[in-house]
Amino acid sequence: MAPNRDGESRDQVRLGQLEQLQMLLNRAYLNVDFYRRRMDRLGLQPEDIATFEDFRRFPFTTSGDLAAHYPYGLFAVPLKSVVRLKITHSRDGSPVVVGFTRRDIQLWQNLMARLYTQLGVTDRDIVQVAYNYSLFPGAFTFNHAAEQIGATLAPSAMTSATLQLKIMQDFRSTVLATTPSFAVHILSTLKAARNGRIGQVKSDLRLLLLGPEPVPDETRKLLHDGLQAEVHGLYGVSEMIEPGIAGECRAGSGYHLAEEHFLAEIVHPVSGQPVPAGQEGELVITTLAAEAYPLIRYRTGDVTVLRETPCACGRGGARLGEILRRTDDRLSIRGIPCYPAQIGNILRGLDPSISDFRLLVHRRFGLGDHLDILVARADGRRLAADSRGADLDQMRSTLRRVLGFGARLQIVAAADLPAPGLIEKTVFLDP
Amino acid sequence: MAPNRDGESRDQVRLGQLEQLQMLLNRAYLNVDFYRRRMDRLGLQPEDIATFEDFRRFPFTTSGDLAAHYPYGLFAVPLKSVVRLKITHSRDGSPVVVGFTRRDIQLWQNLMARLYTQLGVTDRDIVQVAYNYSLFPGAFTFNHAAEQIGATLAPSAMTSATLQLKIMQDFRSTVLATTPSFAVHILSTLKAARNGRIGQVKSDLRLLLLGPEPVPDETRKLLHDGLQAEVHGLYGVSEMIEPGIAGECRAGSGYHLAEEHFLAEIVHPVSGQPVPAGQEGELVITTLAAEAYPLIRYRTGDVTVLRETPCACGRGGARLGEILRRTDDRLSIRGIPCYPAQIGNILRGLDPSISDFRLLVHRRFGLGDHLDILVARADGRRLAADSRGADLDQMRSTLRRVLGFGARLQIVAAADLPAPGLIEKTVFLDP
Repeated sequence: MAPNRDGESRDQVRLGQLEQLQMLLNRAYLNVDFYRRRMDRLGLQPEDIATFEDFRRFPFTTSGDLAAHYPYGLFAVPLKSVVRLKITHSRDGSPVVVGFTRRDIQLWQNLMARLYTQLGVTDRDIVQVAYNYSLFPGAFTFNHAAEQIGATLAPSAMTSATLQLKIMQDFRSTVLATTPSFAVHILSTLKAARNGRIGQVKSDLRLLLLGPEPVPDETRKLLHDGLQAEVHGLYGVSEMIEPGIAGECRAGSGYHLAEEHFLAEIVHPVSGQPVPAGQEGELVITTLAAEAYPLIRYRTGDVTVLRETPCACGRGGARLGEILRRTDDRLSIRGIPCYPAQIGNILRGLDPSISDFRLLVHRRFGLGDHLDILVARADGRRLAADSRGADLDQMRSTLRRVLGFGARLQIVAAADLPAPGLIEKTVFLDP
Repeated sequence: MAPNRDGESRDQVRLGQLEQLQMLLNRAYLNVDFYRRRMDRLGLQPEDIATFEDFRRFPFTTSGDLAAHYPYGLFAVPLKSVVRLKITHSRDGSPVVVGFTRRDIQLWQNLMARLYTQLGVTDRDIVQVAYNYSLFPGAFTFNHAAEQIGATLAPSAMTSATLQLKIMQDFRSTVLATTPSFAVHILSTLKAARNGRIGQVKSDLRLLLLGPEPVPDETRKLLHDGLQAEVHGLYGVSEMIEPGIAGECRAGSGYHLAEEHFLAEIVHPVSGQPVPAGQEGELVITTLAAEAYPLIRYRTGDVTVLRETPCACGRGGARLGEILRRTDDRLSIRGIPCYPAQIGNILRGLDPSISDFRLLVHRRFGLGDHLDILVARADGRRLAADSRGADLDQMRSTLRRVLGFGARLQIVAAADLPAPGLIEKTVFLDP
């Protein structure tokens, strides 16, 4: 692992990043046709990029580029050197494959171990990881890093909130890693239990690690007060690593970025130009150290602010602010990402007579908690149990299987569909 | 890791086991109250056990013993040394916690890596692991061991059969690890695809690794012919490790047991006495090397045969035959174990007016594929939507959440319940 550069000056850090960037561009030029063609088209050689300003001539990489090179087109090493593959989705729902070498996995695991350590997690802690491992492979990183620092792992996975509380109590878990929405659900269940329905519940919990969703302030306060535990967010990108790109320290004023491995830029989502320091824009990340799946100027779709002022915790280095919103229409239902286009493709694949649909997200504390899908069919039939249409139950179970969560599904007359636009979208004006 | 003893004579292997057994008994006596009390009660000291015959005086450990010491009562090391916890269930559905030290995890991972290697899996293979990681934590061992031998891992997890086929084709997976029933489901989906519904599906698959359920001969042949791949079974015990205790070699005449780590006995399920060589009985295992969670004479509930004749593959050592059946009423629905008592507890916890229930397992190719639950209520009401009873939908969703699979649930009049005994039970006569 590269040395922790917390003691270095800003200039030293930036110089180190530039050196790594040049190596990355060389590797990408040699090993990935996609990047080589882009550089050739611009008449750029890796050695032409000597400054961060030069680097801005390099085009962005988008979610669509990733899907267009499915499965292995963007890999920079032979498959033989890849020890782990991960499947995620592009914005239209088509699959994207991310690969990791043994060294990649070790690097990312070290980053998570460092985040644990910075938050005071030691070999005396009992870490409860409450994620769906199938839908959030980042959960594996929580496991491996906890084992690496010698903490005890209670991988409670996707069991119910009641069982999570039982595990928390019986095992005396001190750290809980989960999504913000599931943490809120556990808290409600705990409150009900304390009101005498299950009996007094005692908890040794002292630290909540929340991701991959952002943690709204209201949720943070609710969880802090209700669970009497520190609440810290982690940031990752499923196409790179999650968690581990950045994490909050105990001072709670931003997500410290692992700058020796990730180069961050904030750009205007429409113009692609850098925004003035301290202003919000889309986070663009370049993986400086990834061997198998290097991403150059990847548009994360997350809108945030980059701060370079020293943190109250004493460390310098860049920090990300909270993720304010998305630049696209990605939804997140109980921590699981999905896109309207993806749901539309599933619905029409099952029943070609579906003419239109609306998604209604019922949020609690700012989190996507329930999804209602209203569907209209071209022939106006309210029930889909005829020979042409898929049965409602089958549609529900397919949606559950593909998306990973259940949705309420109703067939309505086209005239009864609400006006479009109920999904909050982030709109940036042209500059 | 202890040396692979394949080259040793039977006598050398047995002598090595006896040495490890004495160390195990000493550790258990010193560190686990439960075992010390049992030895004290029998007036046994660890040093009194000098032969395998002496060892037969040691009482069995049962699933109930494990649940009675929930959560940490049977741990032989301080929690600080435990890096992973795993939750499983005893036969009445109550939770059991198994712990692993860092050394335990490395040992078990080495065993799985050895099983891969013996089946010819190398760093050129692409291993697709299609399990529910929440319900079958053994899936983690498939992952880690594949990474250890440098194979590429495609952890496709619990996605649909259609996506599994897409992954298999796009990634050119050569090895698929999954349950026998899901493998059959993938095969049916593939056959449908080949008949033109999705298009021609090409597969590079050459090896199927199946567990944790036994693989009936009919299923094995069906999968071998349909997928044109070798089919091999693995054996594990969720209270010890899974997979990795034993695995089939390419000669296909039994599951080679990792004898340097596990001592196997076959006993009559009622009398507990050893059965004559080559006859079937209950498998009893002692973990010789487990640090955190040693189990002494643990009754696995699995009925099989132990063979000590040399294998056609050239290796000596003990082999397990196929698991013929269970000594208890454990069911397995699509690879997920459950017990009738557990289901009864869930049902009555939701609706105290439930007076009786029946489980109907619809099997395909000898595998549990669908579970029907028929429920009768004391007041004879057919619908449960009154104030006392839980709504049917709520019962279904609770069952799905707790069991990990969906069941068809119907309320029927008590008189309409079929006679009990539809669940096949293994009956042993008193000797």
